[in-house]
Amino acid sequence: MHAITIPEPGGPEALVWDEVPDPEPGEGEVLIEVAASAVNRADLLQRLGYYDPPPGASPYPGLECSGRIAALGPGVSGWAVGDEVCALLSGGGYAEKVAVPAGQLLPVPTGLDVRQAAALPEVACTVWSNVFMIAHLRPGETLLVHGGSSGIGTMAIQLAKAVGAKVAVTAGSKEKLDHCAALGADILVNYREQDFVEEIKRATDGAGADVILDIMGAKYLERNVNALAVNGRLAIIGLQGGAKGELNIGVLLGKRAAISATSLRARPADEKTAIVAAVREHVWPLVAAGHVRPVIDREVPMSEAAAAHQVLEESGHVGKVLLVAP
Amino acid sequence: MHAITIPEPGGPEALVWDEVPDPEPGEGEVLIEVAASAVNRADLLQRLGYYDPPPGASPYPGLECSGRIAALGPGVSGWAVGDEVCALLSGGGYAEKVAVPAGQLLPVPTGLDVRQAAALPEVACTVWSNVFMIAHLRPGETLLVHGGSSGIGTMAIQLAKAVGAKVAVTAGSKEKLDHCAALGADILVNYREQDFVEEIKRATDGAGADVILDIMGAKYLERNVNALAVNGRLAIIGLQGGAKGELNIGVLLGKRAAISATSLRARPADEKTAIVAAVREHVWPLVAAGHVRPVIDREVPMSEAAAAHQVLEESGHVGKVLLVAP
Repeated sequence: MHAITIPEPGGPEALVWDEVPDPEPGEGEVLIEVAASAVNRADLLQRLGYYDPPPGASPYPGLECSGRIAALGPGVSGWAVGDEVCALLSGGGYAEKVAVPAGQLLPVPTGLDVRQAAALPEVACTVWSNVFMIAHLRPGETLLVHGGSSGIGTMAIQLAKAVGAKVAVTAGSKEKLDHCAALGADILVNYREQDFVEEIKRATDGAGADVILDIMGAKYLERNVNALAVNGRLAIIGLQGGAKGELNIGVLLGKRAAISATSLRARPADEKTAIVAAVREHVWPLVAAGHVRPVIDREVPMSEAAAAHQVLEESGHVGKVLLVAP
Repeated sequence: MHAITIPEPGGPEALVWDEVPDPEPGEGEVLIEVAASAVNRADLLQRLGYYDPPPGASPYPGLECSGRIAALGPGVSGWAVGDEVCALLSGGGYAEKVAVPAGQLLPVPTGLDVRQAAALPEVACTVWSNVFMIAHLRPGETLLVHGGSSGIGTMAIQLAKAVGAKVAVTAGSKEKLDHCAALGADILVNYREQDFVEEIKRATDGAGADVILDIMGAKYLERNVNALAVNGRLAIIGLQGGAKGELNIGVLLGKRAAISATSLRARPADEKTAIVAAVREHVWPLVAAGHVRPVIDREVPMSEAAAAHQVLEESGHVGKVLLVAP
């Protein structure tokens, strides 16, 4: 088969579409013939050499895919060759075939074609596990999403609105904020022109955000803690603004607030399986009912993954950038 | 009645036993004739003028008491005049009488006399709410308790052992560590001589602590995060080592760990009621069965509260210091 390889870490041109051996499905795994994968920010870090695949994972990038089951490994039940699926991967999505534990498979949701489904696994699992399983966002609460127009952001807005929460977003342009508003976001903050702490307080009668989904890490730590409501929960899933920041524990304690930090990729298979099962139970019906849809910025041939990485590096996208297999 | 008043903030001598008006039980409150109260570190901060009572609370110190119900306010059911009780207070325990919302009452546990019961409400509610309701300590997990010989520490050791967890403690002397061992602590760290991160890692095959109950705040922040296991939870309930510290979010994220910070006193009545109900359900049967007992360092007449504060300031105690009403 062909896959995107990274012979040497570097810029987008480091991604090379090359012939490689086919993967074999192991015990409890299925082999997927890939229809599409999608670009995640972690893929850019892997390309730069900063984010090695976890032990046992495919060496090729790609944390999600959709396609058809081409073969079943030993001990797999509940799935059949030919099933249209999408999957959360530990790597290897940028390829014509990938082997994945059956517990990380999801059916293609009703109403979507198989390619579109590649836009869902990472964002649905990341948002559901952080905003709902860890931070327990409840109806009537306020969620603040940084990077509201990203793949993660567009999923977070839709899921939070679907469960009856109020949603605030930050983004860097009016165009991106318009997209967020179209998805249901209630409070729009242009982080280049406005202070998000001030704006979220103003929009919540001074209360602040009950849950914040953050991708900036250190750069936003102090402001995120200041923007939290009493009993607030800050869920950090990215460190785009650095790793080390000053934490005012006194402010946190005064609010009885909490901070979590997670990465989906590093979770062991049993935790991924539990998250995928929760997504199938809670998110898939919302997709089938049309309340939540994949937001796809564009589709790029998989062999031109370099161009797709360029799009993410320039933050010129809204939603997900798909990589379509030949 | 008499109560300990604080005419001017200052050292232990600022505590003055004086005649004051009796409190009146309001809607949903009961009036308790106090048998005993107990000293909490927050009382020392209040005496120094650093910790004002929350709005609506008694101006006198004292976050817990035991005694007999002397009168019922309007709308109270389930309790009767003469019942022996203990209670979580927002203040006013250092007095002959105190009014408290009925939701913050607990019966004196089977097997204890009414005075001893004054040692339980604050530590049981603080430990249960943080270690179990927030950090969800599970059987087989490891809990690290800083200040293992304090009131909070002695309760945390016993509760964690009662649910089947492994317990590590830090304390500042061999004598205090011996007390912790007698209560069931498995891993003993003298923080004056040993590095708790190293010791906890050594005792857990490198895994670290699943839950840490911390009273030091900033001073221990970096080391606590380093001592956490994967999926670990750090619950901060005190800032004896300062409020502002550097947080390495990268380490937190690599462990998928979480930090919470809470104060019991600041919680609104409905949250206190929920915690007291959970303590009655989960902790009281363990006390009645003899698996968990109040650890009482000494009993001091309430009018000599200054001497009791001195004991806590010198950290010369193990467990709780009671203040016995006349």
